Amino acid sequence: MDTAPADITDNGGLRIIPLGGLGEIGLNMMAYEHGEDIIVADCGLMFPEPQMLGIDLVIPDITYLRERAGRVRGILLTHGHEDHIGALPYVLQELSLPLYGTALTLGFIREKLKEFDLESEVELNVVKPRDVVTLGCFSVEFIRVSHSIVDGCALAIRTPEGVVIHTGDFKIDQTPVDGELTDLATFSRYGDEGVLALLADSTNVEREGYTLSERVVGEAFDEIFPRCEGRIIVAAFSSNIHRVQQAVDAAVRCGRKVLLNGRSMVANVAIARQLGYLRMPEGVLTDLKELQHLPKEQVCMITTGSQGEPMSSLARIAMDDHKQIKLEAGDTVILSSRFIPGNEKTISDLINHLYRRGAEVFHEKVSEVHVSGHASQEELKLMLNLTRPRHFVPVHGEYRHLVKHARLAQRVGVPAERCLVAVNGDVIRFADGRGEIAGAVESGRVYIDGKGIGDVGEVVLKDRKHLSEDGMVVVIIAINQASGEVIYGPDIVSRGFVFEDESQQYLDETKKIVLDLLAGMSIETLGEWGEVKQEVRRILRRFFNKTIERRPVILPVILEM
Amino acid sequence: MDTAPADITDNGGLRIIPLGGLGEIGLNMMAYEHGEDIIVADCGLMFPEPQMLGIDLVIPDITYLRERAGRVRGILLTHGHEDHIGALPYVLQELSLPLYGTALTLGFIREKLKEFDLESEVELNVVKPRDVVTLGCFSVEFIRVSHSIVDGCALAIRTPEGVVIHTGDFKIDQTPVDGELTDLATFSRYGDEGVLALLADSTNVEREGYTLSERVVGEAFDEIFPRCEGRIIVAAFSSNIHRVQQAVDAAVRCGRKVLLNGRSMVANVAIARQLGYLRMPEGVLTDLKELQHLPKEQVCMITTGSQGEPMSSLARIAMDDHKQIKLEAGDTVILSSRFIPGNEKTISDLINHLYRRGAEVFHEKVSEVHVSGHASQEELKLMLNLTRPRHFVPVHGEYRHLVKHARLAQRVGVPAERCLVAVNGDVIRFADGRGEIAGAVESGRVYIDGKGIGDVGEVVLKDRKHLSEDGMVVVIIAINQASGEVIYGPDIVSRGFVFEDESQQYLDETKKIVLDLLAGMSIETLGEWGEVKQEVRRILRRFFNKTIERRPVILPVILEM
Repeated sequence: MDTAPADITDNGGLRIIPLGGLGEIGLNMMAYEHGEDIIVADCGLMFPEPQMLGIDLVIPDITYLRERAGRVRGILLTHGHEDHIGALPYVLQELSLPLYGTALTLGFIREKLKEFDLESEVELNVVKPRDVVTLGCFSVEFIRVSHSIVDGCALAIRTPEGVVIHTGDFKIDQTPVDGELTDLATFSRYGDEGVLALLADSTNVEREGYTLSERVVGEAFDEIFPRCEGRIIVAAFSSNIHRVQQAVDAAVRCGRKVLLNGRSMVANVAIARQLGYLRMPEGVLTDLKELQHLPKEQVCMITTGSQGEPMSSLARIAMDDHKQIKLEAGDTVILSSRFIPGNEKTISDLINHLYRRGAEVFHEKVSEVHVSGHASQEELKLMLNLTRPRHFVPVHGEYRHLVKHARLAQRVGVPAERCLVAVNGDVIRFADGRGEIAGAVESGRVYIDGKGIGDVGEVVLKDRKHLSEDGMVVVIIAINQASGEVIYGPDIVSRGFVFEDESQQYLDETKKIVLDLLAGMSIETLGEWGEVKQEVRRILRRFFNKTIERRPVILPVILEM
Repeated sequence: MDTAPADITDNGGLRIIPLGGLGEIGLNMMAYEHGEDIIVADCGLMFPEPQMLGIDLVIPDITYLRERAGRVRGILLTHGHEDHIGALPYVLQELSLPLYGTALTLGFIREKLKEFDLESEVELNVVKPRDVVTLGCFSVEFIRVSHSIVDGCALAIRTPEGVVIHTGDFKIDQTPVDGELTDLATFSRYGDEGVLALLADSTNVEREGYTLSERVVGEAFDEIFPRCEGRIIVAAFSSNIHRVQQAVDAAVRCGRKVLLNGRSMVANVAIARQLGYLRMPEGVLTDLKELQHLPKEQVCMITTGSQGEPMSSLARIAMDDHKQIKLEAGDTVILSSRFIPGNEKTISDLINHLYRRGAEVFHEKVSEVHVSGHASQEELKLMLNLTRPRHFVPVHGEYRHLVKHARLAQRVGVPAERCLVAVNGDVIRFADGRGEIAGAVESGRVYIDGKGIGDVGEVVLKDRKHLSEDGMVVVIIAINQASGEVIYGPDIVSRGFVFEDESQQYLDETKKIVLDLLAGMSIETLGEWGEVKQEVRRILRRFFNKTIERRPVILPVILEM
């Protein structure tokens, strides 16, 4: 990939620069730049992939913004999911920027900022759908969309080069739980006016037809709940307020009390109730104490942990390792969420354990207890046909999703040369009504491990992977500086390599090999630490490979005394 | 779980003991025992789960058989998949037993034994469907079944207590590629005679209806192939000979030559051709050398690597890192195999890379280029209704599959009390026409890492996991034995912890903390290695946690000189 000139602003025109989320799921962040102004849409994180050993979170590399900090006017948030807001506490530590979003989105963000002691430092501007925010040369209208979180919006960004529609995550739910429909009229209005470019969510481009309405899940609850004789446990994402609402409603209809469980579930429900997004009848909530005295057919627990997270209380309940809740035959668990790719095995283990406890389990593979929040092919075509964009840029998706979404756009009439498949760091430039990919800027991923931001890179991850496969062997030798004699060792310590207790003989053999090596070395060679280390590593690598076919990390430590 | 008395044979009757495959997918092995005779059905391995760091393979713990080696009469193999034959080379090193199976099954096993230099030591007895083998008090009829490998059989095991039907893996394909139908007539004959117990494959019990015929995949190939303008690459499991046959046939019909790729693909195709299971017209095969001169529309590569294995040539082709094969726009890749749970992410990455190269990709989620080899609900019901067993034991499945299969059996009329849901190690005992789970025996999993069998246990895996998360820190200190003075160090070496290059200051701070700790210790304390180590570990654990929230493996090494 070519790197753009030092300051690409010289090129003029409108520049759209994805800093995350193109060519990957998660980490969504898009910069819009014109002249002296930059605005940012979303600021998301990604949960680590399996090869990112020990990493807690991943955030976008914001070097591009950091170097132009004085020109960034603010961050617009489409909705409150982690992959759209999760990087804010890290980014806002570096860049002091005002935020713009709907009430629930900012409610979730405020909670997050509190944890990082940033609440008082950040300006939060609540907007309503159809409100327009002006930032530098940009003016942005928020457009209501339905999604698996309430209060989601697309953005219509009016720029000196024309209007860009940025959908964020969306679906076109014809019967949303709160009645707030995707605002097709506004999208159409922009279509009539003329849209320079549509940037649309590609997550579900591989799915034919329409995505089912959220209301389908409520209907599934209403079928399942009345047939349950024991406890009911509904596991869902805590941000999916409509899902929680439907579980609460179904519980109330069956005369069950609701126990909220999981830190984020309790927090998000409180925020949503306070802001009026969630209705709960008086007295429906219960707590662990009261639970002990409730007949089990009057209990409905709504909890996090649907991905089988090992430390969650749902996982502990499934393993029969929860103090207050013992599952038994007749109890029902509903996993009302997606099997997130990469978590299938953990979720499958969770389900097996629940069956061992005697519970019945419903999940998305066997029942309609979950629907997606993203538009399928017919909805994506509808969005294209309503906005009739001159250019199309697929966003929010892995590379194959972007390619397939571009093809879909061509099927509804966008010419191939105006479908721009870009990846993170690409500069999508529009000038005089023409769009192109014009170079690339620095972009990438920053790993967060504990309190460290960016201090774990590929070398450290490679070492962790190596350590994870065959463990490590430390060889300690002390050499007399003056005489070159070995005055201590070799001492051998290992972890994750072989059973230490049962392999004394093997470790003794290993020692002997090192001793023989050292005995054959001249005093001059022994004076060269680097060479001794290299030789020890070489001979042990060969020995371990030949005898047990393992390749541990070998760490010779030479003390010169 | 109760452990059975020292020798359970005292109880009399027929004992069926699963040593693997019940409560898990893979690792299939079942012992049948009566009086002085034991026979074993299958001897499979399991590929490691993600938490089994660095483990190459998993095999069943055969302690139960080892302790009764003199009474084991032989091993019967239902088919040639790794999860049914893969543990043989390890088990046969300990137990010298004759094997019984069909020609292709034994052909694959012979290849495996060659690698372990065991070929000449093992008696291989080729049987045909409807052949009967007598072993001690047991006589066993092999019954043809269709599956995703050719030459699969179920077993009808005649015991002094009655007939047990052991299905192995099966589906009921009405149009198998070789015309060899599942032998429903023989199953019915046993049903008429009376079946004591049916042990049936539970893998697909969650799927409604019928599993599609293997021939559907051939039809998909015939739809896709003629439309391809560039190269075609079909990735499949090398043991799926019918899949390879259909890919070859489709290639021939389009005037394409076939390049076989992948060590096991080449080996298995050779075995299958030699035994007459695979027909290839003269001159259809090509090699890498000739490939360079073939027009791309005349090329069809059949390869392994469908799971995205990082070292496979398909992965290298996708990463544009293959010497002879460069993909380009117009090329087509067909992943003709299952997304094995746990591999979704790797396969998804593979597909994205293929799209980056410009190739079109077909896989089971978007096209009928793969069908399962396991029976769905309607086929499972048919098997139950044909054999009309007195007892039912679900096998080959995770716990939830076993529970659901037992419920399915109840729906077709097997009384609940005669559906026995057992897990590995359970003793399923039949006497006087009555079945029960009567205690349990020693069973479990043995890890294979390199040449080591069973020397990597939970402690080593726990260490590897710990190392993989935050790396390790080694602290070396030398103490003068006589004076108790610190004469060297602390020296600090780390791997997988923080960037070594950029964190000199942090490591210096770490050193200082240890130095301060040592300075505050009395000479008596310094003489107590154990205590010094413990204190160093404690103070560093706290320091790392407080400063960067990481928990590396801390390994203090004290040299007394």
